[in-house]
Amino acid sequence: MTPPLRYAMVGGGTDAFIGGVHRLAAALDGRAVLTAGALSSTPQRSLDSAKTLGLDPDRSYESYQQLIERETARPETERVDFVSIVTPNHLHHPVAKACLEAGLHVVCDKPFTMTSAEATELRNLAAQRNLVCAVTYNYTGYPLVREMRSLIESGDMGPIRKVYAEYHQGWLATPLENTGMKQASWRADPERAGIAGALGDIGTHAENLVSFVTGLEIESLCADLTSFVPGRALDDDASVLLRFKGGAKGTLTCSQVCVGEENGLTLRVYGETGALIWRQENPNVLQQTFLDGDRRLITRGGDRSPSATSATRLPPGHPEGFIEAFANIYRGVCDAIEAKRAGRADAHNLTPTAVDGERGVRFVERCVQSARKGASWVRWSD
Amino acid sequence: MTPPLRYAMVGGGTDAFIGGVHRLAAALDGRAVLTAGALSSTPQRSLDSAKTLGLDPDRSYESYQQLIERETARPETERVDFVSIVTPNHLHHPVAKACLEAGLHVVCDKPFTMTSAEATELRNLAAQRNLVCAVTYNYTGYPLVREMRSLIESGDMGPIRKVYAEYHQGWLATPLENTGMKQASWRADPERAGIAGALGDIGTHAENLVSFVTGLEIESLCADLTSFVPGRALDDDASVLLRFKGGAKGTLTCSQVCVGEENGLTLRVYGETGALIWRQENPNVLQQTFLDGDRRLITRGGDRSPSATSATRLPPGHPEGFIEAFANIYRGVCDAIEAKRAGRADAHNLTPTAVDGERGVRFVERCVQSARKGASWVRWSD
Amino acid sequence: MTPPLRYAMVGGGTDAFIGGVHRLAAALDGRAVLTAGALSSTPQRSLDSAKTLGLDPDRSYESYQQLIERETARPETERVDFVSIVTPNHLHHPVAKACLEAGLHVVCDKPFTMTSAEATELRNLAAQRNLVCAVTYNYTGYPLVREMRSLIESGDMGPIRKVYAEYHQGWLATPLENTGMKQASWRADPERAGIAGALGDIGTHAENLVSFVTGLEIESLCADLTSFVPGRALDDDASVLLRFKGGAKGTLTCSQVCVGEENGLTLRVYGETGALIWRQENPNVLQQTFLDGDRRLITRGGDRSPSATSATRLPPGHPEGFIEAFANIYRGVCDAIEAKRAGRADAHNLTPTAVDGERGVRFVERCVQSARKGASWVRWSD
Amino acid sequence: MTPPLRYAMVGGGTDAFIGGVHRLAAALDGRAVLTAGALSSTPQRSLDSAKTLGLDPDRSYESYQQLIERETARPETERVDFVSIVTPNHLHHPVAKACLEAGLHVVCDKPFTMTSAEATELRNLAAQRNLVCAVTYNYTGYPLVREMRSLIESGDMGPIRKVYAEYHQGWLATPLENTGMKQASWRADPERAGIAGALGDIGTHAENLVSFVTGLEIESLCADLTSFVPGRALDDDASVLLRFKGGAKGTLTCSQVCVGEENGLTLRVYGETGALIWRQENPNVLQQTFLDGDRRLITRGGDRSPSATSATRLPPGHPEGFIEAFANIYRGVCDAIEAKRAGRADAHNLTPTAVDGERGVRFVERCVQSARKGASWVRWSD
Repeated sequence: MTPPLRYAMVGGGTDAFIGGVHRLAAALDGRAVLTAGALSSTPQRSLDSAKTLGLDPDRSYESYQQLIERETARPETERVDFVSIVTPNHLHHPVAKACLEAGLHVVCDKPFTMTSAEATELRNLAAQRNLVCAVTYNYTGYPLVREMRSLIESGDMGPIRKVYAEYHQGWLATPLENTGMKQASWRADPERAGIAGALGDIGTHAENLVSFVTGLEIESLCADLTSFVPGRALDDDASVLLRFKGGAKGTLTCSQVCVGEENGLTLRVYGETGALIWRQENPNVLQQTFLDGDRRLITRGGDRSPSATSATRLPPGHPEGFIEAFANIYRGVCDAIEAKRAGRADAHNLTPTAVDGERGVRFVERCVQSARKGASWVRWSD
Repeated sequence: MTPPLRYAMVGGGTDAFIGGVHRLAAALDGRAVLTAGALSSTPQRSLDSAKTLGLDPDRSYESYQQLIERETARPETERVDFVSIVTPNHLHHPVAKACLEAGLHVVCDKPFTMTSAEATELRNLAAQRNLVCAVTYNYTGYPLVREMRSLIESGDMGPIRKVYAEYHQGWLATPLENTGMKQASWRADPERAGIAGALGDIGTHAENLVSFVTGLEIESLCADLTSFVPGRALDDDASVLLRFKGGAKGTLTCSQVCVGEENGLTLRVYGETGALIWRQENPNVLQQTFLDGDRRLITRGGDRSPSATSATRLPPGHPEGFIEAFANIYRGVCDAIEAKRAGRADAHNLTPTAVDGERGVRFVERCVQSARKGASWVRWSD
Repeated sequence: MTPPLRYAMVGGGTDAFIGGVHRLAAALDGRAVLTAGALSSTPQRSLDSAKTLGLDPDRSYESYQQLIERETARPETERVDFVSIVTPNHLHHPVAKACLEAGLHVVCDKPFTMTSAEATELRNLAAQRNLVCAVTYNYTGYPLVREMRSLIESGDMGPIRKVYAEYHQGWLATPLENTGMKQASWRADPERAGIAGALGDIGTHAENLVSFVTGLEIESLCADLTSFVPGRALDDDASVLLRFKGGAKGTLTCSQVCVGEENGLTLRVYGETGALIWRQENPNVLQQTFLDGDRRLITRGGDRSPSATSATRLPPGHPEGFIEAFANIYRGVCDAIEAKRAGRADAHNLTPTAVDGERGVRFVERCVQSARKGASWVRWSD
Repeated sequence: MTPPLRYAMVGGGTDAFIGGVHRLAAALDGRAVLTAGALSSTPQRSLDSAKTLGLDPDRSYESYQQLIERETARPETERVDFVSIVTPNHLHHPVAKACLEAGLHVVCDKPFTMTSAEATELRNLAAQRNLVCAVTYNYTGYPLVREMRSLIESGDMGPIRKVYAEYHQGWLATPLENTGMKQASWRADPERAGIAGALGDIGTHAENLVSFVTGLEIESLCADLTSFVPGRALDDDASVLLRFKGGAKGTLTCSQVCVGEENGLTLRVYGETGALIWRQENPNVLQQTFLDGDRRLITRGGDRSPSATSATRLPPGHPEGFIEAFANIYRGVCDAIEAKRAGRADAHNLTPTAVDGERGVRFVERCVQSARKGASWVRWSD
């Protein structure tokens, strides 16, 4: 076993949700150790959180600028290997840019940036510097999502005709952002969340899942965005019609006002000769059907494709969940960094990158553009 | 128990599918007895089918014209009480019109007619003659669909925000119509099916279910229709964005090329304070959720609303299915006829009528209109 | 289509549950018409029920004795073809015996008789008179139960090792018999129900299902019977260990105090190379697994065995339920009667007979014998 | 955050399954760090595994004796805080005994020991030395298992009447132990596994789950053990009837020859007024039903009991699985050790201890005793 990589976290103080998930995910395989942090935009809170997490005070920073400056001042054998950015959306770009410019690999939450221009800049920067710039589309880490991708690549399902992607939640069915609840408040604020609400927060996951699993490219789309909760500035619901290059079609719906839905991310893909259905809330089962009526339940952990198998830690019947999938992203990041350092190709690494992040931001922009024109059709390439 | 009503069937020969279902449904409660028939558009086949079904040769007719003529020539105490029309779509209007003009109550399969003008004509005719003109939107006969309607009417779910209606099948994923298979061939033929394929055949069921359960009225829609199977003249797939009066929104998707899907009609309704989910393939369970996270499984047969209870024959745990639901439509037809004869109001009769049939045809027309304009938005009222 | 058979019903007045189910089942295919009845042990109630059901007053009888006497006095072309016995258990034997002695075919509810000696007598009588004597183990009428039998017969599952049969209900979790509820009161009364409660009422269904599906024969058993509800004279819960001839083993549990269970009849069969699982409450799906981890969902209506296909009325995805399965028993009875009259062999008729009924009664006797000896092991053949 | 505890592992080399699971579980929360190991009974393999895992060579030991000797020779501030024992069963007792005698806290896999006398010895030893001696009944770590316990404790379900516990697997349906597969070979060997096979391996989990959730105590039992696979020395299947003190009854079945079953641990508990059903393979849902027919799905992560909530890391809809549950055991161990050191009471710590381990071994002994007497009834207290 190679020694674990050191990472720093920007954002993700102890009062945030997603920072803790990143830490659990990074810890699971012992491949990455949290070594430094600028855990809040408020200096004191940043230090307090670092203390709570037991970080070395020397590496507990007041700001991301300080973090980058001091870490890069350390000898290479000591400095952090990469930085995880888990701030509200509007800070992704400045922090990632500063990290990449300082030669630090980056892991960034989604949506990647506020604009696609920013995303393109980061993508180019990472490429120029030969740095890893991963985006945590964590649902791609589920073994059966990888199996789905592999089965479609194999051609067994035939050319894809129709895709249904859904990401339905209910937690914003009331104006939670007015209660002071932190996660809700920044997500509903255009200054910090960007031009989209539910669409940016979860619609991008659904878009990414479609792309990751099917490889299809959107040609045009028609998006109807709604803010159902009175006074909400951003969409809390979106229904999108999709047309893909090559003739396939799809619908993508996301919502945060579907009362009773917890984390209902679902992907259904219908090809000419077979179909696959996967539901995130029961992630250890994948349903496969064929033209002749054969209907199979594929369970995680059995005799699966290499990409699914390598993402699996436990035998069949021992459920794996959200953290394990998320940990596969961190594992892929570590693999990617180690491969770069060793000058190795890393062709089979499925970890989403700035390319995926950029595509997700463009997806949001196109949907908002469509919605502003009365939910009319918009071409991807325009 | 009142003596059973007598009915005649037009179409539905022994080589058809849906005719047999109508006969099973009518037989279940012993409320209606098949007494006469013009079971095929081919006279000899009509007589052959009648013989196979054991119909009285005197009441086995060569054509629907003959059926109407001779039955109405019989004394009122002997003639058929109503006529079930289960022909391909293009014959619904002429047969129904002739029946109504002859003073016979009508049960007609869906889609009701080829055009909304025809539908309006039948609706008016039925009203003028004070005749029952039912349309067999059979899924409204499921007890838990009626429970869903009742729960929404009660206000417990709050005002509706979002509706997802799906009807996904896979049986036309290949060009079955070229194999001589009767059901496939007429459904794929614009002369007999009308301007729509999957949309008319099953999309109308989904539209009706939304209307029946929620009472929402479509204000505008945007429909993307596709013929995925090469050479197919009509759509075999449709994705429709819906905007309802009052601000609710929805998606309605129907497809007959979703490999592996059997009869996947599903309705999900999200209100401000609760939600309901029902799936036709497992019709004895209804999921209800609330804002506070409470999640209930409502099973058929327990302590339900009057409309659900009266549609239920068996205690909980004893599954009821498609025929039982369909039989509730026939039961409603018999109730409606008896009420009319007795001069009784029949306010609680939920059996779909020409009004529903007409709305369904208009839905098809609006979707096709949208599709022809590049899947642009079309107002219902235009 | 041959003309329908005429049948009489003994028991099953309009205040009973199961009589109505029998009538629905018999009506579904139009193969049998209710023509006469002695619907209650109380003469006046019997006549009242007959009137409500619209029976010919001439054939509405005050007692089963009267029914048999007068029906057999009619010319053969008019008299009823068979008699359905749906009384409380204690009357099964006298009524069935009288019918068979009068030359009338019999359909009898389960448990067949109060003692196995009575069952043997009826079985012999039916054989001697060459009469049909069917027992309504209705769950064998489900198409996928027949598919399960067929798959095991084919050898694909390998020799059976372990069987789990369950029939769990909750409706008697409180002393419902003290409330005057008719179905509960006779079932809890040893005079009318026999030596067993839940075991006789539903345990026999589970035993029959095991036998029908697997063909295994019980060699010995160990039964722990309990009356959980204070004051209840008969068991309301039973757990039985089974050893079959040839080395297979099993457990059979039945209960009527499992709060929340509706009609939870489930059969799981594990062979050396494959396994099958079926649940009555979702009867249109059968799960099949294999040694190599392959896991299939078999749905009703697809490409199935002849015995399953002939028991199916609707295509896949159109749920069939309890009545349809029950109707398959009546269809089998009609087939059997017609085969006997035509002197035809009827080898593929799967309708349960007095042989099954007798085995079920012996099963109850052996369980009670075991329970009385402190739940010790009892050999079937003793 | 307190600094993490240091632990050593005995057994669990890189070719074993369960050792890796323990390491993942201990790592998840960062509460315990693997610091030393004697990872195999073969010295060289032990060192090789330690190297692969990146252990300090100074703390990579050739034997557990060496580990205990050298670790206890270190200053208290450096030595390991506890030892995880994940060897084959026959080594649990000698290793645990040596650890406890050396003053080291212990975490031991199940079944705890080969005999109940050994278990009692360890239990007493731990008590005398005031040391933690946990047994990894890991399924008690699932949040909804703790919720189930809490709901029963609250009295909402009423006094328990009937319990069904199952643990069905299929991986030993063939003589896998003859293929050299390590996990299978020692589990089928009485020298290393003890007097029971499936019963010891997984039946003990089922027994523990019943005890943990319901608090019921077994009064007597009747166990039918079988070795279905030819040549297998130990049971691969067991069916056990249970009678609990106070009148409740139950069945417990476990099997490793149920083809197609992966890790089918299920618990169903029926009380006088309500019931609870939980299935390990879908562990984020708990079904609750009530006398009045109300049927609820309780999901993990919502508004649950304190014991469930504290065992939960993620919000509803973000699945947690096997590792997370297992990690809760390690978290409990760390809490228990810290509480002992601080002299704090630790009343709410639900981590299973030697008391549970001892009861599990006695359960195995009683079942084997019953089986050897022809599956007759055996009293727990004899």
